[in-house]
Amino acid sequence: MPEVSHRGTVMPSSPIRRLVPLANAAMDRGVKVYRLNIGQPDVPTPQEGLDALKHIDRKVLEYSPSEGLLSLRKKLHEYYHTYNIDVDVDDIIVTTGGSEAVLFAFMACLDPGDEIIVPEPAYANYMAFAISAGAKIVTVPSSIDEGFALPPMEKFEELITPRTKGILICNPNNPTGYLYTMKEMLQLRDIVKKHDLFLFSDEVYREFCYTGAPYISAFHLPGIEEQVVLIDSVSKRYNECGIRVGALITKHKELKKNIMKFCQARLSPPLLGQLVAEASIDTPREYMLETYNEYVERRKFMIDRLNRIPGCYSPIPMGAFYTVARLPVDDADKFCEWCLEEFEWEGQTIFMAPASGFYTTPGMGRNEVRLAYVLNKEELDRAMTVLEHALEAYNNRK
Amino acid sequence: MPEVSHRGTVMPSSPIRRLVPLANAAMDRGVKVYRLNIGQPDVPTPQEGLDALKHIDRKVLEYSPSEGLLSLRKKLHEYYHTYNIDVDVDDIIVTTGGSEAVLFAFMACLDPGDEIIVPEPAYANYMAFAISAGAKIVTVPSSIDEGFALPPMEKFEELITPRTKGILICNPNNPTGYLYTMKEMLQLRDIVKKHDLFLFSDEVYREFCYTGAPYISAFHLPGIEEQVVLIDSVSKRYNECGIRVGALITKHKELKKNIMKFCQARLSPPLLGQLVAEASIDTPREYMLETYNEYVERRKFMIDRLNRIPGCYSPIPMGAFYTVARLPVDDADKFCEWCLEEFEWEGQTIFMAPASGFYTTPGMGRNEVRLAYVLNKEELDRAMTVLEHALEAYNNRK
Repeated sequence: MPEVSHRGTVMPSSPIRRLVPLANAAMDRGVKVYRLNIGQPDVPTPQEGLDALKHIDRKVLEYSPSEGLLSLRKKLHEYYHTYNIDVDVDDIIVTTGGSEAVLFAFMACLDPGDEIIVPEPAYANYMAFAISAGAKIVTVPSSIDEGFALPPMEKFEELITPRTKGILICNPNNPTGYLYTMKEMLQLRDIVKKHDLFLFSDEVYREFCYTGAPYISAFHLPGIEEQVVLIDSVSKRYNECGIRVGALITKHKELKKNIMKFCQARLSPPLLGQLVAEASIDTPREYMLETYNEYVERRKFMIDRLNRIPGCYSPIPMGAFYTVARLPVDDADKFCEWCLEEFEWEGQTIFMAPASGFYTTPGMGRNEVRLAYVLNKEELDRAMTVLEHALEAYNNRK
Repeated sequence: MPEVSHRGTVMPSSPIRRLVPLANAAMDRGVKVYRLNIGQPDVPTPQEGLDALKHIDRKVLEYSPSEGLLSLRKKLHEYYHTYNIDVDVDDIIVTTGGSEAVLFAFMACLDPGDEIIVPEPAYANYMAFAISAGAKIVTVPSSIDEGFALPPMEKFEELITPRTKGILICNPNNPTGYLYTMKEMLQLRDIVKKHDLFLFSDEVYREFCYTGAPYISAFHLPGIEEQVVLIDSVSKRYNECGIRVGALITKHKELKKNIMKFCQARLSPPLLGQLVAEASIDTPREYMLETYNEYVERRKFMIDRLNRIPGCYSPIPMGAFYTVARLPVDDADKFCEWCLEEFEWEGQTIFMAPASGFYTTPGMGRNEVRLAYVLNKEELDRAMTVLEHALEAYNNRK
């Protein structure tokens, strides 16, 4: 039988994925499973987006342009301007979700053997897209004790080689909820400029910043406008993860040409998702505010509860809807598995993402988990109670 | 400024793409342009598919499973069985269009430097996906004088090296409309078996076979069931190219595991497209028959007209909705460009795809074009009249 690719074989399976069958089995046993493991919010999609589907009066659901519908790109352009992101319509390329934006950014910027530096813990799928492109992700560890702040610039400098092509950040951060400060962003700007690198900036959680300070996009940094490659998605801000609409934004002319070749090869992004996304941008401010306020409350509630559980610690996340917390266990992988396989309290258990999947440095994040506050407060309350009981039972096993 | 990837830079831009701005400019001048250049049919999407959109009553448009909705995979399973394609539900992975199916097949089977052999002319985007995967496409020329039949097996054998991992066919063929015979398919089976290769089989035009003989899928070939990687899409059979729903089908267990890692990295295929595709499979047989009969008529009509134009020759395509025709010009690239840029007859012109984009062997297809019969008969009639006048005018330039 012919052999499969080495590339796919070495690609890590996320620990969350490995736990999914265990969670399903628990549900089959009748156990209520609180799913804090993924970024699938329970908040409804805007009515404007849902209504757009009912009002499609096309006879043929045909290809859209490879760069996306012009009407959507114009709307996105207006939207970015409300965040003082000064890009042209032509700088915006619509992609099949933020995922494809990352893949095409890597494909169009990196050659096999090229390296990008990423602070860890980091979104696990960056690794998969880097492997797809034959590129190498080099990680700079950040630490829970520093609240996952940007590691010092010397740590980045130490890792720069002739093959380094860029730095990748996710801001606000998945999985930590960290939000880079202006000082940190300017440090990144300086290093990117000094070494002539790309700054890949995944800003899909832009709407969810809880510090009150104005949001800082990589495109706000003066002097590196053509080096920024912005990755975006409508999934999280309008709670429509399933429509698969994202965007890749660059002012680098050659790069735009390169990216377009990958876009043309896959013909077009999904037409229906684009129609929903376009309508969603028109959703009233109240929708965004309500969603925002809901997350603010959930965040406060969950972090408060968490930090009162003996041995648990979470910094206060400043953005997105995740936190990485330290638990009083030696191996969070095993603990998360045990919660789904062997534990239940009053017919309930909890599904968390072991943080090990977000690190590449061996041994890091061993006692950490990522929690997504994508459930309502009542459910979060019960989930935290279950977690407390689970930790007690786990640490009192014979 | 940081440099873009070499990979994207060497990726060829299709000659069709280069002509699009010229076609747009012609339309802006008020010229009616007959677009025979792409496979975007004018046939309506099934009403069942369109209705499915009106009946979505979800509150959240959430991620679907990475392998696709189970309900859609079950429907596809039933559908394949009507073609005697004996696969299990678990063998079917839903992709974002046939395009993603090709990309993931290459990513999961091929490593950088690996080779696949493809008869040419071939669908131009295979090349782009191979470049994405760092793999090499090696072409075996087929010839218009042989009606684009499968080249003799010796030609394939000559090209096999230790890096050869597979053979790729598109059947019925885009761009030629050729349909492989049972004898040819068994030859392919033998070589694939002998050299332990993958057989990548792109069968998205399955519905459009005009010979009356039963359709032959790669999965019908005994003895290589685990070596077949079937690429499929609902785009062409239900005229819903924009929804981006395809499938990748394999019985190779390791390969399935490998492919799933790429699927998980991109989270999920488009939810809305999947709902439309699922409903479309239920479209009554009459819809498929009407579409089929329409193409049969158009094919006969266009090929007859074409072969009566002095110096033009097209074999009779046996499937899909394309043909590759020879024109009495020395350079079809230039002629196609000239038609859009300098020619019009009674306010009309014609947009054809130069065949050079479907060959990798330099100089091949120089006097050939691909024509898609995706317009109705009245329009095809006018388009052929325009072509006849264009050829006369072109060859009588000073």
